[in-house]
Amino acid sequence: MSDDSEGEFPPLSDLERSVADRLPPRIWSYIAGGAGEERTVEANRSAFRRWALKPRVWANVTTVDLGTRLLGAPVEAPFFIAPTAYHGEIHPDAEPGVARAAAAAGVVAAFSTLSSASLETIAAASGGGVRWFQLYLQPRFSVTRSLVERAEHAGYAAIVITADVPVLAVRDRQARGGFAIDGSVPVGNGADVMPPPRASEREGSRYRLRAPAETDWDILDRLSGVTRLPFVVKGVLSAEDERLAVEHAAAGVIVSNHGGRQLDGARASLDALPEVVAAVGERAEVYLDGGVRRGIDVLISLALGARAVGLGRPVLWALAHGGAPSVARYLAALGAELASAMELAGRRSIAEIDRALVVPVPDQGPASP
Amino acid sequence: MSDDSEGEFPPLSDLERSVADRLPPRIWSYIAGGAGEERTVEANRSAFRRWALKPRVWANVTTVDLGTRLLGAPVEAPFFIAPTAYHGEIHPDAEPGVARAAAAAGVVAAFSTLSSASLETIAAASGGGVRWFQLYLQPRFSVTRSLVERAEHAGYAAIVITADVPVLAVRDRQARGGFAIDGSVPVGNGADVMPPPRASEREGSRYRLRAPAETDWDILDRLSGVTRLPFVVKGVLSAEDERLAVEHAAAGVIVSNHGGRQLDGARASLDALPEVVAAVGERAEVYLDGGVRRGIDVLISLALGARAVGLGRPVLWALAHGGAPSVARYLAALGAELASAMELAGRRSIAEIDRALVVPVPDQGPASP
Amino acid sequence: MSDDSEGEFPPLSDLERSVADRLPPRIWSYIAGGAGEERTVEANRSAFRRWALKPRVWANVTTVDLGTRLLGAPVEAPFFIAPTAYHGEIHPDAEPGVARAAAAAGVVAAFSTLSSASLETIAAASGGGVRWFQLYLQPRFSVTRSLVERAEHAGYAAIVITADVPVLAVRDRQARGGFAIDGSVPVGNGADVMPPPRASEREGSRYRLRAPAETDWDILDRLSGVTRLPFVVKGVLSAEDERLAVEHAAAGVIVSNHGGRQLDGARASLDALPEVVAAVGERAEVYLDGGVRRGIDVLISLALGARAVGLGRPVLWALAHGGAPSVARYLAALGAELASAMELAGRRSIAEIDRALVVPVPDQGPASP
Amino acid sequence: MSDDSEGEFPPLSDLERSVADRLPPRIWSYIAGGAGEERTVEANRSAFRRWALKPRVWANVTTVDLGTRLLGAPVEAPFFIAPTAYHGEIHPDAEPGVARAAAAAGVVAAFSTLSSASLETIAAASGGGVRWFQLYLQPRFSVTRSLVERAEHAGYAAIVITADVPVLAVRDRQARGGFAIDGSVPVGNGADVMPPPRASEREGSRYRLRAPAETDWDILDRLSGVTRLPFVVKGVLSAEDERLAVEHAAAGVIVSNHGGRQLDGARASLDALPEVVAAVGERAEVYLDGGVRRGIDVLISLALGARAVGLGRPVLWALAHGGAPSVARYLAALGAELASAMELAGRRSIAEIDRALVVPVPDQGPASP
Repeated sequence: MSDDSEGEFPPLSDLERSVADRLPPRIWSYIAGGAGEERTVEANRSAFRRWALKPRVWANVTTVDLGTRLLGAPVEAPFFIAPTAYHGEIHPDAEPGVARAAAAAGVVAAFSTLSSASLETIAAASGGGVRWFQLYLQPRFSVTRSLVERAEHAGYAAIVITADVPVLAVRDRQARGGFAIDGSVPVGNGADVMPPPRASEREGSRYRLRAPAETDWDILDRLSGVTRLPFVVKGVLSAEDERLAVEHAAAGVIVSNHGGRQLDGARASLDALPEVVAAVGERAEVYLDGGVRRGIDVLISLALGARAVGLGRPVLWALAHGGAPSVARYLAALGAELASAMELAGRRSIAEIDRALVVPVPDQGPASP
Repeated sequence: MSDDSEGEFPPLSDLERSVADRLPPRIWSYIAGGAGEERTVEANRSAFRRWALKPRVWANVTTVDLGTRLLGAPVEAPFFIAPTAYHGEIHPDAEPGVARAAAAAGVVAAFSTLSSASLETIAAASGGGVRWFQLYLQPRFSVTRSLVERAEHAGYAAIVITADVPVLAVRDRQARGGFAIDGSVPVGNGADVMPPPRASEREGSRYRLRAPAETDWDILDRLSGVTRLPFVVKGVLSAEDERLAVEHAAAGVIVSNHGGRQLDGARASLDALPEVVAAVGERAEVYLDGGVRRGIDVLISLALGARAVGLGRPVLWALAHGGAPSVARYLAALGAELASAMELAGRRSIAEIDRALVVPVPDQGPASP
Repeated sequence: MSDDSEGEFPPLSDLERSVADRLPPRIWSYIAGGAGEERTVEANRSAFRRWALKPRVWANVTTVDLGTRLLGAPVEAPFFIAPTAYHGEIHPDAEPGVARAAAAAGVVAAFSTLSSASLETIAAASGGGVRWFQLYLQPRFSVTRSLVERAEHAGYAAIVITADVPVLAVRDRQARGGFAIDGSVPVGNGADVMPPPRASEREGSRYRLRAPAETDWDILDRLSGVTRLPFVVKGVLSAEDERLAVEHAAAGVIVSNHGGRQLDGARASLDALPEVVAAVGERAEVYLDGGVRRGIDVLISLALGARAVGLGRPVLWALAHGGAPSVARYLAALGAELASAMELAGRRSIAEIDRALVVPVPDQGPASP
Repeated sequence: MSDDSEGEFPPLSDLERSVADRLPPRIWSYIAGGAGEERTVEANRSAFRRWALKPRVWANVTTVDLGTRLLGAPVEAPFFIAPTAYHGEIHPDAEPGVARAAAAAGVVAAFSTLSSASLETIAAASGGGVRWFQLYLQPRFSVTRSLVERAEHAGYAAIVITADVPVLAVRDRQARGGFAIDGSVPVGNGADVMPPPRASEREGSRYRLRAPAETDWDILDRLSGVTRLPFVVKGVLSAEDERLAVEHAAAGVIVSNHGGRQLDGARASLDALPEVVAAVGERAEVYLDGGVRRGIDVLISLALGARAVGLGRPVLWALAHGGAPSVARYLAALGAELASAMELAGRRSIAEIDRALVVPVPDQGPASP
């Protein structure tokens, strides 16, 4: 991880605020906006408040090691850059800058089908870093196949298939801010790459997906004929779907509700995690995204069974704050927080983060005034 | 449903706010005001926050169908216009405008005894739309009978009898705003049609209903001699009353607390729903109103056993916003939201919305700052 | 109850606010102020929010009767004026005005040892009204005895002995506002009548009550030699003390924490009620005060076993608002609300208010924004 | 305890506010700031709101005695000054002023390794008062040994070893305020005394403690060869560590999360207390710090099994308010509150404070508006 200590970087509590008022409202609405009333955005955060840490002291901790392996690759921390679109709208460093920061930090970075830069450009910037390619299934399978083949060719280590966007949800804040996810925002992977449809076609009581991409678990089988890369299914919130992922040979799943940007009212990622972990056992790696902001959020997630956690909005905040250097600073700060939290909790390695580290917060009395 | 995409219509999160400050305070107090301190108004909303959705992905959803049948009539969505009074006070389009919008959208609309337009005028505007007539039992049975006969004659498909207004509750906000539900507000169904009494007559410790209308379940038996229309009892919050409704041959019940406008402190409609559904089984249709605003509210209600849900205040907000076209826009937006939520939840039809779709939100830690 | 419908009287939701800013801050701090941080003041109110009403409809309600009997005396409503001190500081009508309003309303009124007017003056104003005398045990038993004898002679029907003020608690808001309960505030019952001590005398780790009044349940036995009046013990929050009250021949108890003005952090009165009711059975009458504001608060309290409820601060608000006529208006409004709530809940009489009327509010999800 | 009644001292509810705006922001950030987002700072306070008091009345209370024994020494109250650093930054009276106030009040005072004054100067000011020395283990054992020997020589009665600061946590508020705990803040115990390290050294995924002090329970065994003073381990939040403390002959433990200044997200001290008390039985004394502000907080803590409680931030507030006299006023006010609460709760001595005094607050309905 980069350890750049120059320049101003705010305390992590202030990072979001430091950019919220500086960005054009349209861009901020894209970053911050969730689906509908943002019930799930809020739920993702409040779920972490229902768990408290029960640390151990004097546990012979003189070093802590954040290192782990994701899909077999050694990484320097159990968190990764979750895929998000359109980095070029936020800062000219865009995805290549994020890739450089992640590679320097030794963490996995996942990049979106809807990246502003092309996946090849990103790969070049990433260098020796571990990168994953996030795939939005395309209306035409030939386009999907081409993307996967390009990703494999460009040295991506896994395909993250997003399962929770058959159609884009209505996001009230984006609507208010005037940000539309449609062909109007330029992307780097080619003119034939499409964002998911914004709405279905309606005929009376029936709503029909426009240009339906594959909508079935068989897509995994079909894609395994295209690439030797492992698949990670993103957007699972139930044990049932987790089992299907394993049956269809997924190497991993990301417990996710798309950062509260798709099905408003969906359960918090963290609330779904224990059930998914219990269902899958050792047969696949389970990751989580949604609401992770601080080192202790990583710690709680791992204590409840996640192998690693994805970082969405905070990376965009950092990118907006100061481009690639700020992303590096954020990753360094998060790593330092996690290391500090492990030192304080008496855990020397990722393997020592166990369920005994967390206890439920008792039900509350009246809110403090 | 109408799919009018012209003109400005706010994100649904903003609809209420968009009209609250524009309307005369007296009218806004009528729309927004609940009984007493509005504990139940608030409870109706917060009850939905206690349930989260547990979606399934890649469930072969290429089309979703919102269509269902209410009392045997095919409709295009599992929501309906709940009966509310005095539309003419809010917008000149009044009930006929609402009727047109509902008919175009293919949803049931229920109209109040205290409509600004006459039920015949409304019926003419409704055209081929399915309409229900809401009945306030009148002090004189002859007036009650006349209303029912007129409704049947005008092609209404059911009689919705309101059971929870033997007397109008004190509504502090309406009192503050200066809106009185009494003879001073003109209604369209005739000079002999009376609103429920505002208070009882008092004599020492005894309070006697003024001009008592029927106050007993036998009214259903008596009315079944007047009309062949089916009855829907509105205002039930207990399994016990639900069973009585079925015994008295009601075809449906609406689990409702009158939008929090009658007995302040009454349980939330959604909290009462499972008990009522369990009590009635298949013997009558169970609907719900109270706090439904968004597509996911519809989804949660159906997952907990409602056959359809009624829309009260949001229709008045839309009517205030821009008359019939805005009501159409609201219905279209709600339908699109529900369709989108079903696509994202992996449900292709109303029949596939099952109890497994919802999970309780865990008890909360401290409120987020 | 008076049914004076002239003049302006605010909706009950607005009564407190209507006087808070108009009164001198010192007087307002006296009315509003609780002990310490006012945890118990808040708890008294929020306890009512944990219960919801489950009404029945069409239950043959054409009249409702609020009448009940308290200690054998017929009264027109199951609520009474709780004893509070220093009415003359709030409005020149003072206790005689409150007495007139209560008598006209047919409800019991209890008056404080620390009344601004003498108990005889109050009795004269009360006329045929049922009145109780609240007793602060005095350092000298001769003074206590004299008060009790005077009360009996002046036609008071019961002695309400306050058990929860061996010493006055520190009330931060009163300290801020500059209101001191000490000899400086004039009282009507004589120069030898003392308020409870403001603090104990300290000597190292020991704190000794100043001028200790009786501090033992035997006081009831001793006083029963002085008067034939029945005793009501005010300030009980446990089944254990309730049983002791019965053993010492109390005719009633008031479940109370002194309106949150004594032991900050004490449990809410309503939370203690079921335990106390279960302990005492039919052997004594159980009342409650603390947090009752609206008709539905009365209803909830009675459903949980109270025979009647006492009204503290709201009577002072009304007195401050407009003297005796406003107290009458408040009592009338409260009676009307209770009657309305019973009509809407399907209860025709106090005897029909049963435990089935209330259900716990389910644990909450996140607070609404 | 001092009973100085001259001068202005605010109600305890106002003490924090009275100094927050008057102090330089840098100093205030030091006093108020917790780790990270201050989840644990908040949790420490809200935990007290989950317990309510169930008082008994007329329990023959004429005197109450706050006296108890801590590690064998008689003290006048079951609370003590928790060790906090850098008093000289807050007020020129500094630790010697606090020592004088505590000695006069007859309560234990613990002083930090990082005191502004030297431990000998503090001891001289303390006079006959009972004082404890808080030990931050030093990189060089010779320095640690020297501190312990000096403390023993200067008449400190116990060594409080802090176990929860192998490394200083990131404290966002302090970072914002510009307060750094490093060599730049002068301390009184000598130039070779070091604060804990602010961060670990990083090398890839490994973080190594700088200048590692002992990190193992064996330190207790090692130190018992240096001094005859008893040890109190500060910073335990689990039964497991409590048992280890007892095995290593600790005389006491302080259930603490360092006032929320170390591991953000750590459970509230009060939430951990019952588990720790159950684990240790009579084999060591169990104290608590974290969130104690008022007399009733002391009462709740003792009812749940603490022998005494430590006071951190409130003492700093008082020191900032007016130096030693204000600390004396705070201690007097707290003692008076506790005495009053015991009088009102029917407890005559510390021994009578039992588990029956507290009941959990029922789960809450919606927050009051």
